[in-house]
Amino acid sequence: MTKRSLPKHVGFIPDGNRRWATQRGLAKQEGYRFGIEPGLALFELCKKLGIPEVSVYGFTQDNTKRASPQIQAFRSACVEFALEIARRGAALLVVGKYGSSQLPDELRPFQTRQGEGIKVNFLANYHWEWDLAGLAEGRIRSQEVSQLDLIVRWGGGRRLSGFLPVQSVYADFYVVEDYWPDFKPEHLDQALAWFKNQDQTLGG
Amino acid sequence: MTKRSLPKHVGFIPDGNRRWATQRGLAKQEGYRFGIEPGLALFELCKKLGIPEVSVYGFTQDNTKRASPQIQAFRSACVEFALEIARRGAALLVVGKYGSSQLPDELRPFQTRQGEGIKVNFLANYHWEWDLAGLAEGRIRSQEVSQLDLIVRWGGGRRLSGFLPVQSVYADFYVVEDYWPDFKPEHLDQALAWFKNQDQTLGG
Repeated sequence: MTKRSLPKHVGFIPDGNRRWATQRGLAKQEGYRFGIEPGLALFELCKKLGIPEVSVYGFTQDNTKRASPQIQAFRSACVEFALEIARRGAALLVVGKYGSSQLPDELRPFQTRQGEGIKVNFLANYHWEWDLAGLAEGRIRSQEVSQLDLIVRWGGGRRLSGFLPVQSVYADFYVVEDYWPDFKPEHLDQALAWFKNQDQTLGG
Repeated sequence: MTKRSLPKHVGFIPDGNRRWATQRGLAKQEGYRFGIEPGLALFELCKKLGIPEVSVYGFTQDNTKRASPQIQAFRSACVEFALEIARRGAALLVVGKYGSSQLPDELRPFQTRQGEGIKVNFLANYHWEWDLAGLAEGRIRSQEVSQLDLIVRWGGGRRLSGFLPVQSVYADFYVVEDYWPDFKPEHLDQALAWFKNQDQTLGG
């Protein structure tokens, strides 16, 4: 067992957008657009800290069964976020079911990694079963995504909700009670400080 | 989202045996035998509460790379625990790499589920890669183990450590800071009370 420094790969589950909107008397779907600026702030922080790879839970195939205004809202927010980080400089890969109308057209160029800089794996129209089904042909479909060291989830939920099951097997899991639109840089600071104090065993 | 009552399937990660032993000035391997009685107490509690299925992390293929006295000690503790719950009445299935000398002979009869009562899936010589590799032939090797609702881990670690990745995708994760040999019935009570207050979304 060794103490760690900075994680090499961090997963982010930005949950709580709808609860945040409801709390403010807004329609649920209004919450998503308030998640874009926090996402960009978090992206800049990770770049500055020198974290080499991050994975972000955009939306899942299950999410596309929600009410239509919500679907339009999270798709739109995901596209805006992804294109903006690509513009700012990232090696962006979109991971999700590609041959599907649920994957926004704007994200299709990133089915292979594009750009240079911090690696960002953005899960869009993702489903863990779709991912694992690749093993029937010898490799998971998210094969290009490395093992996660740390996962940070906002919104208080203590579960993975289908987030990259293979890459999550040894990851430390840090939960922020605040809803995602209330993101503060301190959340990441606290998660990283906590992470440094966890023993690494990798199953050993 | 609906509020839940009793979980149908609970996973248990009884971690911290070695740290518990070290804290008491004992050799690390001495910790394992102090985990048997707590395991039996937990088993009786689950039966009494009417939880229909539980999965228990016995030991992994990675664990068999530890120092020899530790390996002998956790193998022996796992065998004693498993045979005793079989004797008391359980539908016991051992899940782990079967064609391996690391699987104790006493556990081999349980490669198919034996007995009647509460379903107990006992992971022995388990590895998540071994489990998922079954997908190359169409199904995971732990196919008979149902989806988990709740996972309880002792010893303060906030990670799955390779525990049933497919069944864990939507599970709520509850961490007990106490080491496993310090198990108290209140730990389970608290985990179940907490679980009842979590919203169930199943990815939706």
